[in-house]
Amino acid sequence: VGKKVSELYPSLGGAYSDLEFIAPCAKTIAPLVDFAFVCLPHGASSNTCLEILEFGGKNIKVIDLSADFRYDDVELYEKIYSVTHPNAKVNAKAVYGLSELYRDKIKSAQIVANPGCYPTSAILALKPLLDKKIISPKNIVVDSKSGASGAGRQANEAFSICELSNNFKAYGVTTHRHTSEIEEKLGLTANDIPLSFTPHLLPIKRGILSTIYADIICDCSDINICVADAYNSYYKKEAFIKVKAPSNPLPELSSVVGSNCCHIGYKIGKRTNKIIIVSCIDNLIKGASGAAVQNMNIMCGFSETEGLPKAGNQL
Amino acid sequence: VGKKVSELYPSLGGAYSDLEFIAPCAKTIAPLVDFAFVCLPHGASSNTCLEILEFGGKNIKVIDLSADFRYDDVELYEKIYSVTHPNAKVNAKAVYGLSELYRDKIKSAQIVANPGCYPTSAILALKPLLDKKIISPKNIVVDSKSGASGAGRQANEAFSICELSNNFKAYGVTTHRHTSEIEEKLGLTANDIPLSFTPHLLPIKRGILSTIYADIICDCSDINICVADAYNSYYKKEAFIKVKAPSNPLPELSSVVGSNCCHIGYKIGKRTNKIIIVSCIDNLIKGASGAAVQNMNIMCGFSETEGLPKAGNQL
Amino acid sequence: VGKKVSELYPSLGGAYSDLEFIAPCAKTIAPLVDFAFVCLPHGASSNTCLEILEFGGKNIKVIDLSADFRYDDVELYEKIYSVTHPNAKVNAKAVYGLSELYRDKIKSAQIVANPGCYPTSAILALKPLLDKKIISPKNIVVDSKSGASGAGRQANEAFSICELSNNFKAYGVTTHRHTSEIEEKLGLTANDIPLSFTPHLLPIKRGILSTIYADIICDCSDINICVADAYNSYYKKEAFIKVKAPSNPLPELSSVVGSNCCHIGYKIGKRTNKIIIVSCIDNLIKGASGAAVQNMNIMCGFSETEGLPKAGNQL
Amino acid sequence: VGKKVSELYPSLGGAYSDLEFIAPCAKTIAPLVDFAFVCLPHGASSNTCLEILEFGGKNIKVIDLSADFRYDDVELYEKIYSVTHPNAKVNAKAVYGLSELYRDKIKSAQIVANPGCYPTSAILALKPLLDKKIISPKNIVVDSKSGASGAGRQANEAFSICELSNNFKAYGVTTHRHTSEIEEKLGLTANDIPLSFTPHLLPIKRGILSTIYADIICDCSDINICVADAYNSYYKKEAFIKVKAPSNPLPELSSVVGSNCCHIGYKIGKRTNKIIIVSCIDNLIKGASGAAVQNMNIMCGFSETEGLPKAGNQL
Repeated sequence: VGKKVSELYPSLGGAYSDLEFIAPCAKTIAPLVDFAFVCLPHGASSNTCLEILEFGGKNIKVIDLSADFRYDDVELYEKIYSVTHPNAKVNAKAVYGLSELYRDKIKSAQIVANPGCYPTSAILALKPLLDKKIISPKNIVVDSKSGASGAGRQANEAFSICELSNNFKAYGVTTHRHTSEIEEKLGLTANDIPLSFTPHLLPIKRGILSTIYADIICDCSDINICVADAYNSYYKKEAFIKVKAPSNPLPELSSVVGSNCCHIGYKIGKRTNKIIIVSCIDNLIKGASGAAVQNMNIMCGFSETEGLPKAGNQL
Repeated sequence: VGKKVSELYPSLGGAYSDLEFIAPCAKTIAPLVDFAFVCLPHGASSNTCLEILEFGGKNIKVIDLSADFRYDDVELYEKIYSVTHPNAKVNAKAVYGLSELYRDKIKSAQIVANPGCYPTSAILALKPLLDKKIISPKNIVVDSKSGASGAGRQANEAFSICELSNNFKAYGVTTHRHTSEIEEKLGLTANDIPLSFTPHLLPIKRGILSTIYADIICDCSDINICVADAYNSYYKKEAFIKVKAPSNPLPELSSVVGSNCCHIGYKIGKRTNKIIIVSCIDNLIKGASGAAVQNMNIMCGFSETEGLPKAGNQL
Repeated sequence: VGKKVSELYPSLGGAYSDLEFIAPCAKTIAPLVDFAFVCLPHGASSNTCLEILEFGGKNIKVIDLSADFRYDDVELYEKIYSVTHPNAKVNAKAVYGLSELYRDKIKSAQIVANPGCYPTSAILALKPLLDKKIISPKNIVVDSKSGASGAGRQANEAFSICELSNNFKAYGVTTHRHTSEIEEKLGLTANDIPLSFTPHLLPIKRGILSTIYADIICDCSDINICVADAYNSYYKKEAFIKVKAPSNPLPELSSVVGSNCCHIGYKIGKRTNKIIIVSCIDNLIKGASGAAVQNMNIMCGFSETEGLPKAGNQL
Repeated sequence: VGKKVSELYPSLGGAYSDLEFIAPCAKTIAPLVDFAFVCLPHGASSNTCLEILEFGGKNIKVIDLSADFRYDDVELYEKIYSVTHPNAKVNAKAVYGLSELYRDKIKSAQIVANPGCYPTSAILALKPLLDKKIISPKNIVVDSKSGASGAGRQANEAFSICELSNNFKAYGVTTHRHTSEIEEKLGLTANDIPLSFTPHLLPIKRGILSTIYADIICDCSDINICVADAYNSYYKKEAFIKVKAPSNPLPELSSVVGSNCCHIGYKIGKRTNKIIIVSCIDNLIKGASGAAVQNMNIMCGFSETEGLPKAGNQL
């Protein structure tokens, strides 16, 4: 508090030198701003959002980066996160901020719930194929691998370079909270169809790559055309989504890290009658702050791509 | 040729200073040795093995690290590797060198085919549960992640630190040759049941972690006990296999890298009725040279653990 | 040749989709362009530059990223690079492209020689202190550490992730060519004063950090003020150079990677009467293409910071 | 306390399953053991060592891995570490545990002070050349680079993989405590000659590489022979020290990590009249526990190489 941005973050090279941190009090801040991004742990975040809506002007808009307003089903949220939701009414008005799939609702929303990073990679890859009934909603496997920044900045021995460099591991197997978020947004929850989701920790900083296995149920003559058409109908005009034909190399993390893009590629397993989809995002951009800026652009009527990198930087 | 081992590999610290490289001519070498390890590309390897058997003494023994003698079904091998096998008769006598599952046959074998690295991690995890009919042979997904040494030592831009550090990608999706090796050894080929296998490239040097999804078909009262019993009956006395109960943390690469061990852990997905198995090996030891030494120990009547590290070194 | 930029570099996310590669023939290209960047090995680069100057229009401008036009002393260049310079006259007109130190000459130059990456980090740190006679020109030690991209993109076992990850080494000790470039531009060559330069290879992709040791010869009352004043007089208004006071943390690679900045920090060794300077750049930006763009901006009268990132991206 | 070793360290693969942790009470432990390794922070370590000597049997021997008994000059120790030494008498009897240089004294010592990791790499490289008056004691620069395990296992944001991967930085510039340890053991302190020591943090787990610059004062006819002779006279018979001739590649971290070795290489800078020495160790073995085991072997009359790896494992 009271410190300059440029002082605390020397890597900004002196940019934003006139900005200063102030105390994180919603009541004080809300009347001063037109737009708020709330980045707090679940439970705490919802209360701050509610205060901002209460004390801010009539036209204030909020994007919450926690899980507090992501679920349609408040009871499901409460069960998964072991908290009581403070305001089901506001929750009902909150829009799930996956820009490409909920753009129309986001336009007029006052509060948007930024999606989880893993769900972003999984839902963008699966939604078009499920909607077009090309794949079965049953038996889907999402095997995801994430850089360590997915866990946030923390002083934790388990995230030290000595523990993680040269290492690789699964975690949260069968129990990760994002499973339910993916299921609800894909319409599986309503039909009580479970999905297998397994996150893994890569020994790098940034990026999520999800390898997804789904059973093909489409009886078309050319499954490749069918899949391409489905993705095209959803994403052809999207600035940040690139679907690669099976004849091209599959996307890899270096294709997207540093950008707000989601790259999707797929191969058809003829013997197994499965489609294997690879979906890549930068968890810190399309999986977090970039998605928030994209939603803000939509909510404020700005150009949707404003301030958002399309090209990765392959550092 | 003519160079001392200690000269070419300074990191050995002067060990083996009396060893010298000689020309790789099977006819010359075979009469001089009791035991040969053949590490050549498939196609080339089989011919060298055959020459060693021909020109070596009556009791010479050979371990081939290529794929040339791995398959029971020579036609399958020829299709997958696009070569003609030079000697089906010798192939029929070759034993698949997964020590823990083929020990009795390895004991008396003259030629042993060292398994592929990915198949080692997958077969050790799956065989007990398939044999005991705890999981269905259908719908198995093996999602594997390997360090870059799996591709061998090569001058290739794609394996440079600039391309790989911070990167992660899938490769060989639906087409990797190890798929057929896993299928044959699990008895799936005979029943024409395909398995999904997807390898990925980790931005590290060593280690394979396979995440395996299989449908539970067992109607027992306690699936955890059932799985534990199955693994116990296969691996209880094994020096190099450690199966971890679901109450323990899952194995990770740092548990096994530097050792000849395969660590296996699992979780039961109650909602999905799937078991998720995590299987870890060091691809350069249990997945290659360590397995070869273990097989040599068995073939020569030495103590099976001789010269093989049980503890990882977590570098 | 004939391929679209966007096709070959999918990570650009579709940007520059209308650009196409054409054959690298200087005679054909020169008349078509106003400005050329030449990125070829030394020896080859000078000839291409000369052709571009010959066949381009009267006002064509060229930036050469090789060492061919970097030296004032052609004989020194020929000795160090073991080639014969094709055109000493043009060499005499070429300006050394360290923007902050040669800006006035760059403005009106037709051909600019982009500095080497190591020399950029060393010269920017040392020049102000040498000019102000704060440090001795004798006994300077430059101990530099670079990411692997400094060696360019190449298919070379020595740069594979298996050889480099977890590794670190010195190379070119006492023999690296950049030693003479640093010496000439610091005015040491003229006085036959040698400098010690030792490059090392970091197991990462990008960034150079040079740790520099120099003897203090200034007999001022407060060496810290003296050094700060010297740097201030050179760099106070520079957009891309940030000198950090000794009371602040020293710069580290993550401060600059992804930006066109050079960050400089220092500590005074009172017992040793030495100053220890730490100088950081991104070798691919300030040490190569970014510096070229900065020079182009100066040569063309554009805003000098156009298109150049000031903030690192800490990937 | 009360936990089995094998339970807490699963990567040991079940080894040492009969060992159990007990409460760290010196009075209780001392009478039970013949030999103690004390690994505690400085200040705390000396008191524990003194208690072990007091309550242990007459023949008990102790190796302290802290800095508490490393200095001959107690006042220097107290100044550098800002503590009061509890027992100067015992300190006077403690022997500095650089096995190769103090072997005779270590043989009969009851308490040995294990050297710091950086000092080990620097002293082994410099001592022979200083003793033979080949290099000047003045103007020595030790520029060291260490893996992150040098800082110990700790929950600290600064050592998280997100902060360190792709990063590199200097720290403790002009102030690191190991400077005084190096100076004392090289005999510089007595003559009030300061040495420049700069440690850096590599984005890897293990290994120290020190690049050392020293002025040649020897007026021999062939400096290379002179240096080789000096090292030979000290290290020719040493199992863990390998000095590489200048015609060979310099040592790198992968040469030594995983071993108890120190590899030393050097180049002569003819123009600068300096020798540049590169010295590599594994900070966790020769720089810590390996050196302790080597000292124990000497103190107990065991074979000095018992239990200590000579070959690196290049993970």
